[in-house]
Amino acid sequence: MLTCSKDRVQNKIETFAKFGDAGHGGITRFCFSPEDLQAREEFVKRMKAVGVETVTDDMGNMYATLPGTEEGLPRIVMASHTDSVRNGGNYDGILGVITAMEVVETIATEKIPHKHPITAMVWTNEEGSLYPPAMMSSGVVCGKFDKAKMLASKSSEGKTFGEALKQSGYVGDEANRLNPKDYMAMLELHIEQGPVLEAEKKEIGVVEGVVGMVNYRIRTYGQSDHAGTTPMPYRRDALLAAASALKYLHAELDKLDSNLVYTTGEILCHPCIHTVIPDLVDFSIDARHKDPEVIKQVVEVIKNMPKEFDKCEVKYEEAWARNTIDFDKELVDLVQKSADAYGYSSKRMYSGAGHDAQYVADMMPTTMFFVPSKDGHSHCEPEFTSVEECWKGINVVLQTVLEIDKK
Amino acid sequence: MLTCSKDRVQNKIETFAKFGDAGHGGITRFCFSPEDLQAREEFVKRMKAVGVETVTDDMGNMYATLPGTEEGLPRIVMASHTDSVRNGGNYDGILGVITAMEVVETIATEKIPHKHPITAMVWTNEEGSLYPPAMMSSGVVCGKFDKAKMLASKSSEGKTFGEALKQSGYVGDEANRLNPKDYMAMLELHIEQGPVLEAEKKEIGVVEGVVGMVNYRIRTYGQSDHAGTTPMPYRRDALLAAASALKYLHAELDKLDSNLVYTTGEILCHPCIHTVIPDLVDFSIDARHKDPEVIKQVVEVIKNMPKEFDKCEVKYEEAWARNTIDFDKELVDLVQKSADAYGYSSKRMYSGAGHDAQYVADMMPTTMFFVPSKDGHSHCEPEFTSVEECWKGINVVLQTVLEIDKK
Repeated sequence: MLTCSKDRVQNKIETFAKFGDAGHGGITRFCFSPEDLQAREEFVKRMKAVGVETVTDDMGNMYATLPGTEEGLPRIVMASHTDSVRNGGNYDGILGVITAMEVVETIATEKIPHKHPITAMVWTNEEGSLYPPAMMSSGVVCGKFDKAKMLASKSSEGKTFGEALKQSGYVGDEANRLNPKDYMAMLELHIEQGPVLEAEKKEIGVVEGVVGMVNYRIRTYGQSDHAGTTPMPYRRDALLAAASALKYLHAELDKLDSNLVYTTGEILCHPCIHTVIPDLVDFSIDARHKDPEVIKQVVEVIKNMPKEFDKCEVKYEEAWARNTIDFDKELVDLVQKSADAYGYSSKRMYSGAGHDAQYVADMMPTTMFFVPSKDGHSHCEPEFTSVEECWKGINVVLQTVLEIDKK
Repeated sequence: MLTCSKDRVQNKIETFAKFGDAGHGGITRFCFSPEDLQAREEFVKRMKAVGVETVTDDMGNMYATLPGTEEGLPRIVMASHTDSVRNGGNYDGILGVITAMEVVETIATEKIPHKHPITAMVWTNEEGSLYPPAMMSSGVVCGKFDKAKMLASKSSEGKTFGEALKQSGYVGDEANRLNPKDYMAMLELHIEQGPVLEAEKKEIGVVEGVVGMVNYRIRTYGQSDHAGTTPMPYRRDALLAAASALKYLHAELDKLDSNLVYTTGEILCHPCIHTVIPDLVDFSIDARHKDPEVIKQVVEVIKNMPKEFDKCEVKYEEAWARNTIDFDKELVDLVQKSADAYGYSSKRMYSGAGHDAQYVADMMPTTMFFVPSKDGHSHCEPEFTSVEECWKGINVVLQTVLEIDKK
């Protein structure tokens, strides 16, 4: 079986880990920050070193295409992103970019025959850390988001994404955008970001799709009064009510399907002063499952929640939702076949996280590969996947690209 | 009985309510903001109009002294503050300043005989809204806080209190500070900030002291992981643990003395993103009671809290504490006598909130007067006390000043 170079993979991981190194094992590399521009330059430099030029589109997405032996065939693209969350790790996103580069480099340097052009691609602003929303550029390219609105997206310091894009120097031609005419398939390797592969001792996650989700805001309404002067029976404490609502939702949702995941991750409290009884608390609930019926049950739990906790009114509001996305069955089978060919252990699974690939899936045959995440950590500095595990994943991508090329 | 002018009281309340009017019934008037400077100018102008000049000390505290008929006698001072919290009301602090002005104006214009000089005073930065801590200037003048540290206190925008003080133009001589040689008694009228007087239909709160308190921080430690990819059994959710700890503390503290008040008013969550399981939550608990034994029981509840909730470690830390302060018994009795003389209903009570008077109490005979707060609201825009209620309170202060003057 063909394999890519473990040493080169290690070198790439170590090199990119320097761009935005926060000094304690992880990185902060916001889209179009100086650190992100370093990573982009490194991508261009390394692709150029193997004879491949990089072009960009109007969203700053980067494409480095190794020509194939036959004229006029559509391209096979591998893509992920270079940007990170604050104090993120060295694998989320960047490992997919490293994979794309390494596969192109292996095919180029080892002169592996291939008919179709093969493209290594970088998506702009997948995390949306500075400029929301996440998956901004794949959203624009795949027709999910309005470009003008995205250009107007502001960082908390008031800079727009449009300004940052222009200043980056990476604006290219809209005609260069990923599209279903010039491209035949898109592949994305990513860390699992969960503990399942590690726990089940599987080397490759064969990703069948991205689970559907709902996101609600729960709000409790109390009365702000002074902490020192208001006897307890007179109080309507919105934070106490929020704690009760949160505990209630956890207890009820724990009764649903065991594959359901749900998260109460964000809480806002007003006025949030230790000497004042809170009058408004707002927290998020995010729930994900591949079966829409289970998501419906979650919504029922939220809607049937008591209207009052601790003398405070409780309201809910849907923030957003997405349906389950299924990847291309033929491609998924090819991934499975490739993993099997190396003798790597694998598990078919759905992605709980969102990825650019989910938008692309509506436009062309698309699929994803997962490699294990140590202790399941991601979006944090302890995020880790061994070079050996990365290398195995990249081999499976290499083999899958060559299988697609046969079509 | 002598009384002050109800019309003038109304005029003063309405005039000061303009300085920082937020457009929906309340004010935002941070220390040394343009709005606070308007209020200070109005104080100087009104005092000058009744023939009284204003001087300031090195913290910008203002003193307008009406001379007495006998030379060399110490002064009687009435004081409160002009600054507010964000979206505060038209009574907290400013009503005590209005009281001081109205009593001086009544005595001056009606030429009421008095031996001692009588001072209307404004404390700088009682709320500490922009420049913490609260009660900053009384803390400095009464030797509780280090002046250099206070000058270095920074707003969230990075401006120091020292810069704001200098720019205000209100810096005066340190020799002008309130002191126990030149002053014989300090009186402060304040809104109750609680619902007790209103509920019990009492017109005057005869304040015997300020209750002792403790303030703790409770922290829960979980593990940050991705909301979509981490199965529920693998999670350690610090916000769920914080909700459990908060509910536990409320349940346990509710078993203690019924006069105990406690508040969990501030909560911080990290990273506070709807797609990430929180790894750290930090919330405040503030508990107040005049009996130190009850405060001890609160501390026992906190210390005996389980060390773990929902697989997350829970820790506590004392932030600060203060002992119960008792006001001067003789002055308290004079307040009672004055209220009785008008036939006003009254209630002896402790203040649950902190006031500049609590620091002054260590330096000279001091006491406070409360007037009712509608629905007990304060530190918020619905804060309200009728002109009639304010006027009655000010009459009691007037009478108490004249009683002290007899000594």
